[in-house]
Amino acid sequence: MLEELKEKVYKANLQLVQYGLVVLTWGNVSAVDRKANLVVIKPSGVPYDNMKASDMVVMDLNGNKVEGELNPSSDTPTHLELYRKFDSIGGIVHTHSSWACAWAQAGCDIPAYGTTHADFANGDIPCARGLTEEEVNSDYELNTGKVIVEEFERRGIKPDEFPAVLIHRHGPFTWGKDPFKAVENALILEEVAKMASRTQRVAQYDENSNIGIERYLLDKHYQRKHGKNAYYGQL
Amino acid sequence: MLEELKEKVYKANLQLVQYGLVVLTWGNVSAVDRKANLVVIKPSGVPYDNMKASDMVVMDLNGNKVEGELNPSSDTPTHLELYRKFDSIGGIVHTHSSWACAWAQAGCDIPAYGTTHADFANGDIPCARGLTEEEVNSDYELNTGKVIVEEFERRGIKPDEFPAVLIHRHGPFTWGKDPFKAVENALILEEVAKMASRTQRVAQYDENSNIGIERYLLDKHYQRKHGKNAYYGQL
Amino acid sequence: MLEELKEKVYKANLQLVQYGLVVLTWGNVSAVDRKANLVVIKPSGVPYDNMKASDMVVMDLNGNKVEGELNPSSDTPTHLELYRKFDSIGGIVHTHSSWACAWAQAGCDIPAYGTTHADFANGDIPCARGLTEEEVNSDYELNTGKVIVEEFERRGIKPDEFPAVLIHRHGPFTWGKDPFKAVENALILEEVAKMASRTQRVAQYDENSNIGIERYLLDKHYQRKHGKNAYYGQL
Amino acid sequence: MLEELKEKVYKANLQLVQYGLVVLTWGNVSAVDRKANLVVIKPSGVPYDNMKASDMVVMDLNGNKVEGELNPSSDTPTHLELYRKFDSIGGIVHTHSSWACAWAQAGCDIPAYGTTHADFANGDIPCARGLTEEEVNSDYELNTGKVIVEEFERRGIKPDEFPAVLIHRHGPFTWGKDPFKAVENALILEEVAKMASRTQRVAQYDENSNIGIERYLLDKHYQRKHGKNAYYGQL
Repeated sequence: MLEELKEKVYKANLQLVQYGLVVLTWGNVSAVDRKANLVVIKPSGVPYDNMKASDMVVMDLNGNKVEGELNPSSDTPTHLELYRKFDSIGGIVHTHSSWACAWAQAGCDIPAYGTTHADFANGDIPCARGLTEEEVNSDYELNTGKVIVEEFERRGIKPDEFPAVLIHRHGPFTWGKDPFKAVENALILEEVAKMASRTQRVAQYDENSNIGIERYLLDKHYQRKHGKNAYYGQL
Repeated sequence: MLEELKEKVYKANLQLVQYGLVVLTWGNVSAVDRKANLVVIKPSGVPYDNMKASDMVVMDLNGNKVEGELNPSSDTPTHLELYRKFDSIGGIVHTHSSWACAWAQAGCDIPAYGTTHADFANGDIPCARGLTEEEVNSDYELNTGKVIVEEFERRGIKPDEFPAVLIHRHGPFTWGKDPFKAVENALILEEVAKMASRTQRVAQYDENSNIGIERYLLDKHYQRKHGKNAYYGQL
Repeated sequence: MLEELKEKVYKANLQLVQYGLVVLTWGNVSAVDRKANLVVIKPSGVPYDNMKASDMVVMDLNGNKVEGELNPSSDTPTHLELYRKFDSIGGIVHTHSSWACAWAQAGCDIPAYGTTHADFANGDIPCARGLTEEEVNSDYELNTGKVIVEEFERRGIKPDEFPAVLIHRHGPFTWGKDPFKAVENALILEEVAKMASRTQRVAQYDENSNIGIERYLLDKHYQRKHGKNAYYGQL
Repeated sequence: MLEELKEKVYKANLQLVQYGLVVLTWGNVSAVDRKANLVVIKPSGVPYDNMKASDMVVMDLNGNKVEGELNPSSDTPTHLELYRKFDSIGGIVHTHSSWACAWAQAGCDIPAYGTTHADFANGDIPCARGLTEEEVNSDYELNTGKVIVEEFERRGIKPDEFPAVLIHRHGPFTWGKDPFKAVENALILEEVAKMASRTQRVAQYDENSNIGIERYLLDKHYQRKHGKNAYYGQL
């Protein structure tokens, strides 16, 4: 069942290790089959180097396990909520990568400071509010997904243009058209988070420093890579 | 004698190198056999790549060498004191990993800033007081163990819920049910120490930042992984 | 056509990965054949591990593609402008390496703080102004090159003595007599950028700290390596 | 001639790369044969991966080349001055490792903040003054050695107890009984420099932090490893 998608999700999970985005079992990748309305996701707490493609768990969008010996990632309800509400995305990644988590733990958006950021997202990376005690104590992981969706609605931003979010006190989720693109976005987010923190530190020592990208430059870079007339790459 | 445990302790010591937690000979792992009341520990100052499983030293809990050609780690009396007083633990690790030592040298607890921390420990990671001149000048390594135990008693916290401690001016000790779990906790401690420092730095630049995890969120994450109704992983 | 130069440019691009200066496709190397007035450059958005030497694109100095199946790097007009105006250079590198970008995003020159810097450049590494909205919206990449040249003219400095520049909000360009030397300079720039930031941080905590290299020491190091009577190395 | 010592110096130079202490050709190791009064040193500006043991250069203590096709390291006169004045040392290392250089560029001693430092040196790592214009413009590298010796005399400290020095604006020199021990000390210095900077940063955010090791604890750690009654290791 969904053997090809399982293989992709398996490989995408291993990329998290290769890119240095996870230690131990601190991350998970999923993908959705939009025709079958099924999601393939990493099993919970299984070390990456013991894992096989056949260990991937198949869920329906309502949270029922359809196939698999193992328990799915404990973050599964968050993934499912995002697939239900963000209908253009095909893959999702959650990690505890260090720099992204630092911004999440501080409760700060990652400001768009330069073109590296502008090539990635159409503005600051949003940090969603933390969950209330009530939201934590019932359906915590589902509510995490709801808070992300709420944040995007409140800001009027689109998941296609902002492929990442931070959850206050927690960490990042990223997504893309498929699981590999979602992993790539997790890597870019970590680089952008690191670069932004270093930029603040460099700027701190120089009165003449000037940080924060102009809208026209952000637009230029975002559109040359993602817009209708994109000319970056071989597309 | 205790060949299986020696092999485990040997392999766990090598993991310190693989995880980048030690340079040169700056770390040691031990394990206890609770039935035999014997401890297996790394020999002192021996490079990891020359070491064999048969080089591991066997000690009784009173500090007598029972087997082994080499001197045991100079930190052995600290390990033994912890095994005597923390009766649920099966393995102990000491390293000079850089971020954990930075917090130890500063004399600061590592604050629980997010869910990565809450998945690991049931509150701030304690930094125990430094030793007095008298404690240093007689039975220094034993007194290090005593100060750790004193700190846990003073705070009323349990080693099962706090698998790590910092010693002021010195560095971290971590433990677990076996030597591999103790190494895993040494790795997590280093990640958490790094992430906490980065969180402080990010928060410094934004007036609206907000750091420090709420108790209800800490409980949720700690309990979903370690509590009676834990649902993380395949347990 | 230019097979030897393609091979060099190909290998120099792979060095960016080996030196840890790029993730994904975030960098490009080019080289010029001054007799043929042709430039060989990396194709746009192609992953380094799929790339072959024969994928390199040949351009003339006016921006016409002379050979190649693929689109050239989107930064090609910047490279070409630099080859047209800086006639002593033979290779150019653009990356988004993290520390260099931090200085670029902050809009700060990298100050010459020590001999590591002085071995590399004859003064502070210039950060060129950001582009205006008009410059961004027409011929953006060409204007990036023009702003670099303008900055060197405004400061009265020579590309031979300053093998690197930062563009505000963007990142670094480096160059050299050939593509390998340009990559080497990209690596040195990143090391110098990192060391300068760390120097500021160390100095911040000590009232007696003193940063900023004296001109006579900068001259000594720059000249012993690059001057007429250089005696560093085997030249 | 001195084939065995050349082999050692060659291997010790390669360790600089393995330990991540150098990029490109930014470092050199030498060793002295005290009976022959000859020094073996890395050739200047030669990449580590092209180098052979037979490329090592033999110098006498007065700075005359005794054997070797290549030019010796440009830092040779510094090495020779240290061998002449510090008669207990057998090997010397110079690098531009990033954290040690940050302290050197800031002109700050590395304070003894903890036991990692105390295991290494008997107090703060000294940063020697920068050279005057006159000292730079004649016999620069020799004067670098003289300034180091002057600093040790001024402070009344011994090279046996302080195996490292920083030169303001420049970087570190370390030494040991042989070239491998000198490399080990270069590695420890870098770790200690990094840990000290991180300690300052952590301490900055907590009013109750407390940094600076007590003399009695420094003595304990220094003596248990290096003193007459040392009990660390297998000695």
